[in-house]
Parts: sequence; C-alpha cells; structure tokens
Amino acid sequence: MREEFRADLLEVGRLLVSMAEAVRTAMSAATTALLSADKEGAERVVARDEEINALFRAVEEKVLRLLAQQAPVASDLRMVITSLHIGTDLERMGDLAEHVAKSALRRHPAVCVPAELTGVFGQMANIADRIAGKITLVLASRDIERAAELERDDDAMDELEKALFEKLLNTEWTHGVEAAVDAALLARFYERYADHAVNAGRHVIYLVTGES
Amino acid sequence: MREEFRADLLEVGRLLVSMAEAVRTAMSAATTALLSADKEGAERVVARDEEINALFRAVEEKVLRLLAQQAPVASDLRMVITSLHIGTDLERMGDLAEHVAKSALRRHPAVCVPAELTGVFGQMANIADRIAGKITLVLASRDIERAAELERDDDAMDELEKALFEKLLNTEWTHGVEAAVDAALLARFYERYADHAVNAGRHVIYLVTGES
Repeated sequence: MREEFRADLLEVGRLLVSMAEAVRTAMSAATTALLSADKEGAERVVARDEEINALFRAVEEKVLRLLAQQAPVASDLRMVITSLHIGTDLERMGDLAEHVAKSALRRHPAVCVPAELTGVFGQMANIADRIAGKITLVLASRDIERAAELERDDDAMDELEKALFEKLLNTEWTHGVEAAVDAALLARFYERYADHAVNAGRHVIYLVTGES
Repeated sequence: MREEFRADLLEVGRLLVSMAEAVRTAMSAATTALLSADKEGAERVVARDEEINALFRAVEEKVLRLLAQQAPVASDLRMVITSLHIGTDLERMGDLAEHVAKSALRRHPAVCVPAELTGVFGQMANIADRIAGKITLVLASRDIERAAELERDDDAMDELEKALFEKLLNTEWTHGVEAAVDAALLARFYERYADHAVNAGRHVIYLVTGES
C-alpha cells in the first residue's frame, strides 16, 4: 500500500511538473506575442490553455482515485490535498498567460505596449519565467532552497509593478488612457501570475518537507 | 458511517454558507466605502478578510478530517472535494472585496470613482450582491434553479464591464489616466468576483445534484 501510495503521488507530481512547464511556456510565448504584436503566437497561447486545463483535470482525477483507493490519512492525506492546491494555482497561471495573449490580440495589428514600457514588461516576463522555472525545478528535484527564493522574486515583481504605475500616473505620460489601462491590467496579470507561483511554491515546500 | 458522513458534509456546508454570507457582506461594505470614500468602512473590510480566511481554513480542516475518518469513495468523495473547490472560490471572492476596499483607501480622502461612474459601479455591486446572495441561498436551501441563474447574472456583469471600458476609452473621458486606471482595475475586481461566484455556483449544483 505504502509503495503504491508513493508511486501514485509521484505520478501526480509528474503531472504537476508538466503543468508547470506548460504555464511557463505559455507566459513566455504570450510575452513574445505581446511585445511583437504576433497574432498567430498569441492565438497559439489561447488555444493551448485547453491543454493546461486538461492536465489539471488529470491531476484531479488522479487525486480522486488515489483518495478512493488508498484512503490516506494524516500527513499523506495532506500531501494529496496539497497537490490539488498546487494544480489550482498552476491552472490559474495558465489563465493569466492566456489573458496576456488576449490583450495582444485585442490591439492587433497595433502593439499593445508602447515602446517606453517594453523594458519593464520584459523584466516582468523574466521574473515570471524565473519563478515558473523554479517551481518546475522544485517539483521535479525537490530542491526546497529554490522554493524559498520565490518570495524574493515576488518582491521584485511587486517593485516593477509599482514602478510601472508611477510611469502611467506621471504627468509626462503621453500615450493616452487606452495604453495606460492596457498596461495597468497587463501588469496585474504578471503580478497575479507571480503571486500564484509563490503560493504554489509554498505548497511545494510543504509537499517536500511536510512543514508549512 | 453513512449518517456520520451526511452530518459532516452538512457541517462543511454550514461553514461554506458562513463564508458566502461573509464575502457578500464584504463586497457590499467595500462598495459603500468605495463610493463614499469611507476610510473606517474600508479598513473594516480589510480587517475582516482574516475572518473569511479563517473560515476557509476551518473548511479545509473539516474536509481533511472527514476524508481521514470516513474515507469516502465515488460520488461521496467527489462531493467532499467539490466543497473544497467552493471554499477556494469564496476565499478568493473575499480577497477581491478586500481589493475594492484597498482601492478606496489608496485614494482617501478623495473618492476613487468619478461621479460619472458611480452608477455603473453601483450596478456592478448590485449584481455582485445578487450573485453572492444566490450562492448563500443555494448552499443553504439546495435550490438549484437559483444556481442556474448565476450564468445570466455573470453575463450582465460582463456587459457592464464592457460598457465601462467604452466610457474610459471614449475621447470624451475627462477624468485623466489615474481615474481610468483605477476604474479599469475596479471593474476587473467586480468581474472576477462574479466569475468566481459562477464557478462556485457550478460546484454547488454538482454538490446538490451530483451532476456537473
């Protein structure tokens, strides 16, 4: 039973790694599409969100089977439920990448982000990518040192968001209301992505160490 | 065992009803604080979010105990896990009410929303309140007809959000970038609140009928 439980939990872990890789790829592709007004690229991100949702359903099904067949208790049970929480966060990260791609589509063929903000969105995307990469790594390798770094990455994202808002609300902003509204919503998508990643990271630490 | 399972599931249901009532009160109070620049009101919403989070932790603990002690299978197991999903959505709705309250605080003593938009935010808040009220009712009474109405309410919210964005992006917008950015983010908070409510509603239908 114990062996079987371990094997099932590992399989759930593998599905979560696939999800983490997929949401990382999605945000990276969404950013590229956003900054280059690449319609096909953005459409691919939107289409592939369904794959991420399907992976999450697979996690849910596997967890339900595991609970039904093995009726884990105590810390084993907590680990299983924690896997579900990680899946929920990753699924939401996929949605946020999709939102970025849809913003690109909404303004196509124009570029949604004024040249002045390309740098800050590039940095936000880098942090998002680093965070998603760490989650993948931590899930796959159980290297919890990396998981603990996630909070710092999230602080950096918050700083960037604050700096961006200062730009938007500065009297020298010349790109008008639409570009400001787009940028504010986009910044929020990246910031929420990082938040969910940190949340997932906390759950992963728990999954690996049993300590929250 | 069966009796005990039912009783435990009912208790989880009662906790979820308390959560639904709390997030409804939170959004209603947050809107009042927003539209009247009421600092103390907004601060109360922020402070009380901790109570909503505590209710969610109680749901989680109860669910874990239920799974460990009773090891439900098949549809019983699905219902338990569904309760957890409803709790996740409700907890997030509480966060969104808190975001609205924080927007009010950020601009205090100014009113965050220009008079021109008071009407549309009032309508958004009404829909949010109706939706949250229905979830409470459906959870408490298992009246699934009401749950099915949630999708329509959500469509109405989406329409309002669209109308609001048209106002913001209209050349006649005279309130500047900051007010537009605030309004866009606020609209998103209400829209996300409704989305999570619809999600929770779908889960409630499943909980009551066993059909998704």
